[in-house]
Amino acid sequence: MMSHQPANSTIAVDVMGSDKGPTEFIRALVHLNNQGDLHSNLVLVGQKRMLERLIEIRKSKLNLEQITILDASEVIAMDEKPISALKKKKDSSMLKAIELVRNKEAHAMVSCGNTGALMAGGTIRLRPIEGIDRPALAAIIPSKKAPFVFLDVGANPEAGPVNLMHNAILGKHYAQARLNIKNPKIGLLTIGTEQGKGTPDIITTHQYLSQIDGTINYAGLIEGFQLFDGSVDVVVCDGFVGNILLKSSESLFSFIGDTIKKELLRNIKRKLGAALSASAFKDMKSQLNPDDRAGAPLLGLNGNIIKSHGSSNAVAIASAILAAQTIVDCDMLDLIKSDILLANQKIEA
Amino acid sequence: MMSHQPANSTIAVDVMGSDKGPTEFIRALVHLNNQGDLHSNLVLVGQKRMLERLIEIRKSKLNLEQITILDASEVIAMDEKPISALKKKKDSSMLKAIELVRNKEAHAMVSCGNTGALMAGGTIRLRPIEGIDRPALAAIIPSKKAPFVFLDVGANPEAGPVNLMHNAILGKHYAQARLNIKNPKIGLLTIGTEQGKGTPDIITTHQYLSQIDGTINYAGLIEGFQLFDGSVDVVVCDGFVGNILLKSSESLFSFIGDTIKKELLRNIKRKLGAALSASAFKDMKSQLNPDDRAGAPLLGLNGNIIKSHGSSNAVAIASAILAAQTIVDCDMLDLIKSDILLANQKIEA
Repeated sequence: MMSHQPANSTIAVDVMGSDKGPTEFIRALVHLNNQGDLHSNLVLVGQKRMLERLIEIRKSKLNLEQITILDASEVIAMDEKPISALKKKKDSSMLKAIELVRNKEAHAMVSCGNTGALMAGGTIRLRPIEGIDRPALAAIIPSKKAPFVFLDVGANPEAGPVNLMHNAILGKHYAQARLNIKNPKIGLLTIGTEQGKGTPDIITTHQYLSQIDGTINYAGLIEGFQLFDGSVDVVVCDGFVGNILLKSSESLFSFIGDTIKKELLRNIKRKLGAALSASAFKDMKSQLNPDDRAGAPLLGLNGNIIKSHGSSNAVAIASAILAAQTIVDCDMLDLIKSDILLANQKIEA
Repeated sequence: MMSHQPANSTIAVDVMGSDKGPTEFIRALVHLNNQGDLHSNLVLVGQKRMLERLIEIRKSKLNLEQITILDASEVIAMDEKPISALKKKKDSSMLKAIELVRNKEAHAMVSCGNTGALMAGGTIRLRPIEGIDRPALAAIIPSKKAPFVFLDVGANPEAGPVNLMHNAILGKHYAQARLNIKNPKIGLLTIGTEQGKGTPDIITTHQYLSQIDGTINYAGLIEGFQLFDGSVDVVVCDGFVGNILLKSSESLFSFIGDTIKKELLRNIKRKLGAALSASAFKDMKSQLNPDDRAGAPLLGLNGNIIKSHGSSNAVAIASAILAAQTIVDCDMLDLIKSDILLANQKIEA
């Protein structure tokens, strides 16, 4: 196994299967080189010849010492069925990048490809860490106060109380690593905060989270209307609720944006006003949907996998790569493992 | 039993227990009298002396022939625990209004009071209609195209496939009555629309809804990102997901509003622009959060109950009363009853 020294950690990057194509990844590397925050080595996994050509064009703007290429002849497309794609395409860039993590040749992998295939492939090849049944996908969401970790956004739609307790621990460590919060406050999402309200699963999870208080900083139940208040640093829910909530929030954001735009164009006075305040909307959009918080880790596996949005631009990809570097640097995986064992013991006791 | 002729239907109105107090209800009656759309009789349930005084002040602006008062000495407060409040306060305005519906002295009741107490009291006193286990609370939500019915927003957080199928039928009839859509398209909310995705409950519900196609106009599964697109007229989910989604959408709406406001006040140019386009934001807000679509019916009981928001203003209360009149006028309850029996037979076959 390679040493976990920050200076020589390695991140595998699946450069295929995204909406914008491999060029956007090379742009991300240029961005990272300009920023100077990347101290990891990168293994770009994809069609070698094409990658060599793309790198050749921009070689003056890249740190070539950090970059190696691993050839992969196949690509899993966005619309392929995950399991059959994984079975058929053994030489796909996604699977080969996962294999690098499995074989300890990389500390983490980043992909903008097919989410279902990444979750299934990651789970099958890396396996959940000891004491955990299923991984969870975590997102970082803005709020009135500060961004928070929201999980699970779709990996495990049928999470029971023990899964939800594990999600709390996974969220804690991701908030520590990525948001730099020492003792993140954890909230459990439900439909009423009175004693005895919510489903039986929520009531049991609430008991578990209270029992492992100390391992986590449990702030209690929170309701939907508190979600964007920023009252907690981590919001825990199952993958069914989390996925619908994340996607419908994006849908609502777009709907509100459309409605504002339509109203602002309704007459000349409004149009003038909109022109004068246009920068405010741009700033709002980048605050609420920032590229520099892109990248959703699949937490709870024996290895680090970061999913970035299929349509990620260079800044978002760079951010996902830095997220991978951050969780490797702070040994997040080891911290999770020991907390999981501790928590499982506490609720079994 | 009274006749269901539009001209002499009766609506009981619980005028106590809201945030703004009984005066707001009298304002709602003035608004209704100005509008001229109310052809039902109203029984105002609450503290008689106070109501008489409030009516006396505005008697020139009211249609006194439509209004009677039923005295109720007690009020269930917003923060009371539903079940114990219902047990203790037998002479509460809410319970007495429900009793009027139970005794067929009113065709519907409207309340802005404690939601939990209203759902529990309504269910206990009116009972679910034959073939249904639990009622569902329905909201009307704006979208890019047209408003749609969204249910359940919190009455039954542990809905199984049969409950979800019943929600589809309840939503169909409410969309017909309130949104005036002849053959509403029904969507089932889930996390992926491919064959075999989603939870086992969703997969079974999808089968049921396909089986009863004809009784309903089933458009299939929809994902969170489609929610505000307006692709369907009714969106079906369980009360856990629906309540969290509704409340978190309100939370996101407020968060986006705050962020826009902050950005627009950041410099003098933006402030000027905001002043010129101020009416656009007002119009947007009333489009996305309209008072004239207030009122959420508790569907699936032997009687019509309409819940209006605790902080409803006169326009919203008037809208809830008209919603009650509409569902009484079109005999929604009878239509639901026959569809439920038909659907239950189809899936048992």
